[in-house]
Amino acid sequence: MNNIFIIGVGLIGGSFALDIKELYPECTIHGIDKNDTHLDEAISLKLIDQKSNFEDLKKADLVILAIPVDATLSVLPRVLDHISDETIVFDAGSTKENICVAVKNHPKRRNYLAAHPIAGTEYSGPKAALRNLYRNKTNIICEVEETAFKLQEKALKLFSDLGMRIRYMNPKAHDKHIAYVSHLSHISAFMLGKTVINKEKNERDIFDMAGSGFESTVRLAKSSPAMWAPIFQQNKTNVIETLDEYISNLKHFKTLMEKEDFDAVYNEMKDTNHIKDILNGIQ
Amino acid sequence: MNNIFIIGVGLIGGSFALDIKELYPECTIHGIDKNDTHLDEAISLKLIDQKSNFEDLKKADLVILAIPVDATLSVLPRVLDHISDETIVFDAGSTKENICVAVKNHPKRRNYLAAHPIAGTEYSGPKAALRNLYRNKTNIICEVEETAFKLQEKALKLFSDLGMRIRYMNPKAHDKHIAYVSHLSHISAFMLGKTVINKEKNERDIFDMAGSGFESTVRLAKSSPAMWAPIFQQNKTNVIETLDEYISNLKHFKTLMEKEDFDAVYNEMKDTNHIKDILNGIQ
Repeated sequence: MNNIFIIGVGLIGGSFALDIKELYPECTIHGIDKNDTHLDEAISLKLIDQKSNFEDLKKADLVILAIPVDATLSVLPRVLDHISDETIVFDAGSTKENICVAVKNHPKRRNYLAAHPIAGTEYSGPKAALRNLYRNKTNIICEVEETAFKLQEKALKLFSDLGMRIRYMNPKAHDKHIAYVSHLSHISAFMLGKTVINKEKNERDIFDMAGSGFESTVRLAKSSPAMWAPIFQQNKTNVIETLDEYISNLKHFKTLMEKEDFDAVYNEMKDTNHIKDILNGIQ
Repeated sequence: MNNIFIIGVGLIGGSFALDIKELYPECTIHGIDKNDTHLDEAISLKLIDQKSNFEDLKKADLVILAIPVDATLSVLPRVLDHISDETIVFDAGSTKENICVAVKNHPKRRNYLAAHPIAGTEYSGPKAALRNLYRNKTNIICEVEETAFKLQEKALKLFSDLGMRIRYMNPKAHDKHIAYVSHLSHISAFMLGKTVINKEKNERDIFDMAGSGFESTVRLAKSSPAMWAPIFQQNKTNVIETLDEYISNLKHFKTLMEKEDFDAVYNEMKDTNHIKDILNGIQ
């Protein structure tokens, strides 16, 4: 790995850059980003060694795409057009079906690995990059059989060096499950934030009365709309299904309250306490 | 403060006990709890010095009620029946209107201070007690004018020693605002947990794919139903109002997605990002 290209030098790309530079100190990390200020920041933060462009991709050993999922649909084919036969390219997007379809017939399809590292924070941009963001995190790889075996090996070696767990899924299953465990959480947090802000015009009341519980539940409402709007667009059908079920569960809870059936309200919560065991698995 | 009684030796009562013992090492901390196992645990965890009962309350300097809000409605009048004129009693419940009404005409109303320390975790029981849980947290005091001035002073000295900020509100306003910034967060987390558990019968999928975002958003679904069902019951009208608005915001978001209006979806999130500034105030 001599020449590594990071396309999108934000939280996700920048965090890859930090750990990769530590793992392979001799490599050169090239940054590509449509936002030139972010590139300058990435250089001053020592995320990347130098700015680069698509023409230079021919010398790339590895290309990491860490841009919003709508941009990936057009940028990934362009990247594949420019790379050599030995280059491995992976993305880090939160939707996998559309992107796999987009490059299905590309002559360099076998140079691409569809990946989704389950890692991040609610912050974005180069300054949000963190060391060890990927350690002990899951990386979901889709359609692994479509990637050339030798190039898979290169990527898997890197993921292993970064401390990631690998899980293989087909893109359809990925998009369906991730709608539940990730995309829905973001909408629930955004709408919780909206509900409270709309009501509490006088923010001092929120400031004074909100505790760590509210903070934790609404945290994801700080997330980047530029990243999330395209995710919801690409995963529209699954996300709407999760929203239907979430809204229906909320309505049922409300009905139980209206009927004053607080034993049932108790049981709703008791049954869901079981989430403890599941969350213990995550940590 | 020689004799301090904690009624309910769980997370909230136990955390008060820990800090009070450190502040006033000579005091005796008496524990009362309907769960005898919890009392034994509280002794072995050194939260309390000894088990006690209502007859002993006559020697109390301070009584802290930290039990579910439905139990407080019947226990607080009994406590007031037993104390001396010099005793200050405060509760820590998450609803304030019902309890203030319940003791409105009690001859010892002036010995009671209606309090709501905004502090806690998703855990419960004596083992969940934490040192410094109340440091830098807000304590909302309701109807302060109904409490004898000298007894207010005693309580305020304690809150100040514990490092708490004080805010005064009327019980109605408290219950209305807290429905938004606390009660709704709990329902949103419980129903998120329910939605995901119902869908993902195969828990390995949740375990592997869920990241820190889901964990944070669903955290409150670990909370105690015995504590929360009575809160929702007592704050029914306000909580139903917040649920109506939350459900309506979620439906609107879903409609925008169905109409493929992803610019509007983007703006919904952009407008709510403003929660960052509010949360910066909390930390």
